[in-house]
Amino acid sequence: MTAPTSLDGLEPGYDIPALPGMTLAEVQTPCLILDLDALERNIAKLGAFIRARGLRHRAHAKMHKSVDVARLQMSLGGACGICCQKVSEAEVFARAGLPDILISNQVRGAARIDRLARLPRTGAAISVCLDDLANVAELQAACARHGTRIDALVEIDCGGSRCGTTSDAQMLAIARAIDAAPNLTFGGIQAYHGPAQHLPTHADRRAALDETIAVTRAAVATLTDAGLPPPLVTGGGTGSYLFEAASGIFTELQCGSYAFMDADYGRLRDEAGQRLDAGTWDNALFLLTEVMSHTHPTRAICDAGLKVQSLDSGLPVVHGRSDVTYTQCSDEHGTIEDPEGALTVGDRLRLVPGHCDPTCNIHDWYVGLRGDRVEVLWPVSARGKAF
Amino acid sequence: MTAPTSLDGLEPGYDIPALPGMTLAEVQTPCLILDLDALERNIAKLGAFIRARGLRHRAHAKMHKSVDVARLQMSLGGACGICCQKVSEAEVFARAGLPDILISNQVRGAARIDRLARLPRTGAAISVCLDDLANVAELQAACARHGTRIDALVEIDCGGSRCGTTSDAQMLAIARAIDAAPNLTFGGIQAYHGPAQHLPTHADRRAALDETIAVTRAAVATLTDAGLPPPLVTGGGTGSYLFEAASGIFTELQCGSYAFMDADYGRLRDEAGQRLDAGTWDNALFLLTEVMSHTHPTRAICDAGLKVQSLDSGLPVVHGRSDVTYTQCSDEHGTIEDPEGALTVGDRLRLVPGHCDPTCNIHDWYVGLRGDRVEVLWPVSARGKAF
Repeated sequence: MTAPTSLDGLEPGYDIPALPGMTLAEVQTPCLILDLDALERNIAKLGAFIRARGLRHRAHAKMHKSVDVARLQMSLGGACGICCQKVSEAEVFARAGLPDILISNQVRGAARIDRLARLPRTGAAISVCLDDLANVAELQAACARHGTRIDALVEIDCGGSRCGTTSDAQMLAIARAIDAAPNLTFGGIQAYHGPAQHLPTHADRRAALDETIAVTRAAVATLTDAGLPPPLVTGGGTGSYLFEAASGIFTELQCGSYAFMDADYGRLRDEAGQRLDAGTWDNALFLLTEVMSHTHPTRAICDAGLKVQSLDSGLPVVHGRSDVTYTQCSDEHGTIEDPEGALTVGDRLRLVPGHCDPTCNIHDWYVGLRGDRVEVLWPVSARGKAF
Repeated sequence: MTAPTSLDGLEPGYDIPALPGMTLAEVQTPCLILDLDALERNIAKLGAFIRARGLRHRAHAKMHKSVDVARLQMSLGGACGICCQKVSEAEVFARAGLPDILISNQVRGAARIDRLARLPRTGAAISVCLDDLANVAELQAACARHGTRIDALVEIDCGGSRCGTTSDAQMLAIARAIDAAPNLTFGGIQAYHGPAQHLPTHADRRAALDETIAVTRAAVATLTDAGLPPPLVTGGGTGSYLFEAASGIFTELQCGSYAFMDADYGRLRDEAGQRLDAGTWDNALFLLTEVMSHTHPTRAICDAGLKVQSLDSGLPVVHGRSDVTYTQCSDEHGTIEDPEGALTVGDRLRLVPGHCDPTCNIHDWYVGLRGDRVEVLWPVSARGKAF
């Protein structure tokens, strides 16, 4: 590969952080970088785990919003397809040729439902979740209008207290209405417990998931007794998938963050009390930042602030260094405590973001590195797609 | 104006929240909306205040990142130009024709400095801040290479403990080096105290600014004694500008958030103990959201989560309603406590974001409303520009 030597010759505004062939030192900061070796290890490892149990992996693309990462999850990890949370995200992935897309969320409002109903025309198999009877008729009417077919799953509240039906009566009524709707197919159950993903210990997560699995098992039985055995029971995330995988009830897992990891998931403990980023999953996503000011002897200022990361799950962690600490974040600046004065202007640090999903959603590009060399530049394909 | 009646006919992926002429009810959620009446009131009010004191307003465009809002601040508010924080932001504004742009921040690294040095070729007057002597030679060399001229200001640490020189010796050495550099002009002093903007009471902010103003006054005297009287003394923000305006030292104010406001600034108290959003500045920016699920009787789920706002300064506040409260935020969902069961699926709420700057930086569009009618659709022109 012929390596361009710099971005200097590019027009102002041609605003990419790097070109393939560059070295890490030439990458513009702040930007998101991917350690491709780590990413591939994570993807292969989860794929092997799920396949070995005879389950399907539907990779959650809401985390990375990248067509390229989704394709890698299918080709290397054996994922059957993806899930995402918004119609506008699904449009991006469907038009890119992803074959099987579940919107693991409710889609309401006439304009959005209309967009959803048109999506199968791209050739992708489209499925969606419902938790309200009125939504069945809305969706049926839109699919009939466009001559399309969609798999509709009932989302049940399995402990997260967010979306999802809260009674057997609601669940059955929706499932029966889906089954009776000419343009819809009853696709099964969505059962995802969001808050449980982030409970700190394995025992905490097990206790939460015991309840989730019990609720889901009962829902499967109720639907089966009513003559509507769910074709799919889908859910699970990076914090909980061990439990869904062992449940004998779930048929599909939706893990997403395992591929990139972040500081919040890294702090969680496994059954042996080890951190999840110490052997289970490798940090593949970093926010590359550069020291831009150092006028105080023990404090460096770097160029990664609130405009390039989300702080909802805490501050980023400086990777691979115990001598410096990221302690404060303002719009365009990060404060790095540097008690030994180890840093100088121009020094670069890899930050592990507190929370990968909303951090990725701010950026336009991933710079994929093989060692010290830029191998790929991937767009954050569905960045900002919130409708 | 002929009003399009819906977005249904648009191609999937043509992902705009609204078209001019639509009513508010037709706007796609979640999205940022601007109350244009409130925006114009804020802009006219600050402009009049600053003009009446014989000072200049350099509007901080890092907040809104919008060429259209910046133009309104110049035409309606009399702003002399803008400031922003990044070279890549400045490129967007310069290419759009904004005449006078200060990068109120350090620019380091060869590629970035090269981009900066090319910017005056757009025809805009470009200025930048420095706090390190080595940066003068870097900038001079780049400007000489491109045959351009830049105004260079010394940033002093006036209490924020972030960037800025911390001694008279540093400040003087940088100012003298700028003055001696053939392609640079000594532009004056940047003195901005970021953390002071957000102190809760007027007395807190006054105390912090007393110190800032004393430090800045001393710096002006030192430079003047050295034969380098600063042509410009620039700084100030929405939380502090009253003090800089009255100082007799500052010649230019950089307020930005006053135009949109947010929940964090709204909570601050003025001298009379009134909230800043109760008469001083109107909320002009809202995150429009829709209820998408309501399976729990006292809890509604809306479609505005972490992917459309920054939580660094707290949760958003539901505007104009005391009966419902936004209490939790996950990636794509907001939890609204609804104790009276007042909300149903499809209901819409206006949220005041906790912090406007990083929230705006996630979105691609502002929907500008005159009353209930969409008047303009403005791009967030410099969204994500972080280099």
